[in-house]
Amino acid sequence: MFELHPDLANDTSLVIELPLSQVLLMNNVRYPWIILVPQRENILEIHHLEPDDQTTLFQELIQASNIMESIFSPDKINVGALGNMVPQLHVHVIARFKDDVAWPDPVWGHGDTIPYGPRKRERLQTQLADAFKT
Amino acid sequence: MFELHPDLANDTSLVIELPLSQVLLMNNVRYPWIILVPQRENILEIHHLEPDDQTTLFQELIQASNIMESIFSPDKINVGALGNMVPQLHVHVIARFKDDVAWPDPVWGHGDTIPYGPRKRERLQTQLADAFKT
Repeated sequence: MFELHPDLANDTSLVIELPLSQVLLMNNVRYPWIILVPQRENILEIHHLEPDDQTTLFQELIQASNIMESIFSPDKINVGALGNMVPQLHVHVIARFKDDVAWPDPVWGHGDTIPYGPRKRERLQTQLADAFKT
Repeated sequence: MFELHPDLANDTSLVIELPLSQVLLMNNVRYPWIILVPQRENILEIHHLEPDDQTTLFQELIQASNIMESIFSPDKINVGALGNMVPQLHVHVIARFKDDVAWPDPVWGHGDTIPYGPRKRERLQTQLADAFKT
């Protein structure tokens, strides 16, 4: 039975469930930032997924990257699967801007998190979910 | 005509040319760290590659992750496509250990680089190249 790691659940809200992955919105106004979590138990690495799941994850990552680009028009998309802190396999897709607070460094561990206001967060979740549905 | 970005060329040595990507060994003893660079001109993002190239890149990334895991037995593989500093599309595959100097942070921008001695570097390049050939 797949269960989302509590640290991922605490920092995010659910955007949509794709065939393989849950798409989560990171609750941080500093960067448009989503996380894909394949709904499989006890998998820590992309290359440990079954081959079919690897293919699906890659398709979902491409879709996520296209959506982040078209909604936010960033200067760069950062994609990363690290998992040094939260072991459950999850892949970050982050829209980066040359004037964001961490640029050109990676966002992880960089500065405090500033949560969205509830209305802004809800609007973004809906906008993202709609984009994944089309 | 594909040409490797000079910043990538300076920091690395060539391990092998796969069907799509050059595999480069980062010249830093702190972490076993390779970089895959798809040999395509003017591409900055994975999702901007042609669909066939996306598929090939993902296969090469899975192969690279398996090889890094089997050679180095790390605690975690970190995979990332950032490109905030060097715009040419390149994907990092890094073997991480709980006692490496950056753990649990990402390696990028973390501490000085310590280059390999020439013999150690050559041995590693050969070991990696052999693994990609099998």
